[in-house]
Amino acid sequence: MTESVGDLGEFRVIDRITERYRQNTAVIVGPGDDAAVIAAPDGRMVVTTDMLIEGRHFRRDWSTAHDVGRKAAAQNLSDVAAMGARATALTVGLGAPPETPASWVEELADGFRDECAAVGASVAGGDTVRSSEIVISVTAVGDLEGRTPVPRSGARAGDVVALCGRVGWAEAGYRVLSRGFGSPRVFVEAHRVPQVPYDAGPEAADLGATALCEVSDGLLGDLGHVASASAVTVDIDPTALDVPDQMREIAGALGADPLDWVLTGGDDNALVASFPPETALPDRWQVIGTVRDGEPEVLVAGAPYEGGPGGHVHFG
Amino acid sequence: MTESVGDLGEFRVIDRITERYRQNTAVIVGPGDDAAVIAAPDGRMVVTTDMLIEGRHFRRDWSTAHDVGRKAAAQNLSDVAAMGARATALTVGLGAPPETPASWVEELADGFRDECAAVGASVAGGDTVRSSEIVISVTAVGDLEGRTPVPRSGARAGDVVALCGRVGWAEAGYRVLSRGFGSPRVFVEAHRVPQVPYDAGPEAADLGATALCEVSDGLLGDLGHVASASAVTVDIDPTALDVPDQMREIAGALGADPLDWVLTGGDDNALVASFPPETALPDRWQVIGTVRDGEPEVLVAGAPYEGGPGGHVHFG
Repeated sequence: MTESVGDLGEFRVIDRITERYRQNTAVIVGPGDDAAVIAAPDGRMVVTTDMLIEGRHFRRDWSTAHDVGRKAAAQNLSDVAAMGARATALTVGLGAPPETPASWVEELADGFRDECAAVGASVAGGDTVRSSEIVISVTAVGDLEGRTPVPRSGARAGDVVALCGRVGWAEAGYRVLSRGFGSPRVFVEAHRVPQVPYDAGPEAADLGATALCEVSDGLLGDLGHVASASAVTVDIDPTALDVPDQMREIAGALGADPLDWVLTGGDDNALVASFPPETALPDRWQVIGTVRDGEPEVLVAGAPYEGGPGGHVHFG
Repeated sequence: MTESVGDLGEFRVIDRITERYRQNTAVIVGPGDDAAVIAAPDGRMVVTTDMLIEGRHFRRDWSTAHDVGRKAAAQNLSDVAAMGARATALTVGLGAPPETPASWVEELADGFRDECAAVGASVAGGDTVRSSEIVISVTAVGDLEGRTPVPRSGARAGDVVALCGRVGWAEAGYRVLSRGFGSPRVFVEAHRVPQVPYDAGPEAADLGATALCEVSDGLLGDLGHVASASAVTVDIDPTALDVPDQMREIAGALGADPLDWVLTGGDDNALVASFPPETALPDRWQVIGTVRDGEPEVLVAGAPYEGGPGGHVHFG
């Protein structure tokens, strides 16, 4: 018989989860009290929340519980990085039907732990409740270590736009899985767990980024937020975007345009930033466009992008 | 036609929500960026997360959206108080079916705002997603203002146990509503929105509380956490507990024992603490028991409590 979370009850589920965590030195009070206490040596704390719903943000037949835990953690840890901060801790709200296998929840917790380990953060608290579908709400907190937080609103005419990390890979994996295929593995894996360049966030802040944003809704969609908040036009050079041969091949096989995936695919959690034009950028920051005065919009090679649906629409 | 969140789409829902909020001075970066930035002058930050599910933690036919927002905020703000801290900000993850009226979500946001105002906190960020039932995940953060956080684990033999706030009132309201009644109003209102003595948390810390805990799962259940964490026996004097006449009457009418509600009813978000016996306690802290060496358990008048189911069971 598979043991379920309903068999265990709330407090034993919490015990099973929390025994899997190790607390880093930033955690002054960890799980088991009314609230956690986290060191905030900077005197300011970055806080962000993202929610994932089964069937909408992940599927249990496509991703393991460990994958889902890593992805849910990554979405939030990358938001902390996108302010120029280092993540220190997560809290996790978990809603699950009583028939959910206890092992699924344990592996989910392992996924949170393992993705946190990539940045030295830990899971410091949370809540578990009964729900009719699996709901995961993650809050990440982080420390700015003296940096000025980098908003979306600081892009200025003359800045260059640079990208660090992958775009389109998770979308390619989603399309492949949607057609019932399990390969190419690189894209399927990218859909399951993003590879996030966490330390590029603080790096961008240190390099003097004028605006910084995580790419979770798609490159055009998220740069649209930067264009709006900064009241500038962003012009993307599509020839500067990296479209791997393997992505071209699989897009061709599926009758899709790989540039569409790169420009509008979400969930890779890349970082995109604007920098003053004279900034000496490390290799992993690839210049993909420019900022100029004009309507708050994102252009591709000087014109509105006509392809693709553009960004995720969550309530559509 | 009633406008729904599906009609609006994610970004317009977020606009409708965030335009209702005012940010306090602790909010350095508010809604609209990758993450919020909150002042943490103490150098440590208190963080807590609670999740509410429609049908399990609230009913839309029993509570207004404004009530639900206030209650969800209160549950988390009181957890911050229970560490001895003052809450500074919330983030809110909201899952809602697309047919949810936009007005319901707007009133929910007003409820968050209004309960936050009671402690000077603000809603600084969040996420909205589509789900099949309404799910609300609130994270509250707070500042210790130089206080040592008060854990559950510090109760010592010889301490007195004191209670600040109501217990049993929300349970009485739940029982009344469950029978299809709408009165007594005081209990129905207490079920809908708790009256939380937020500033009693920092006060208890300043008075030298050795352990401090919020009462959300029921007095015996939550004192059980204190007894376990502190490895002590807690002995409650039931004659010291305030059972209002109106509660006796309605319990009698429903064939229930009002002491059961007071000892095991949840959701009032009272604060319970242990103090050294010589502590001069303000009037609102009512001594209800003592701490002694022994098995980690909670007794009522020296014996295990035989009535009631004891505490909430979330996955049962």
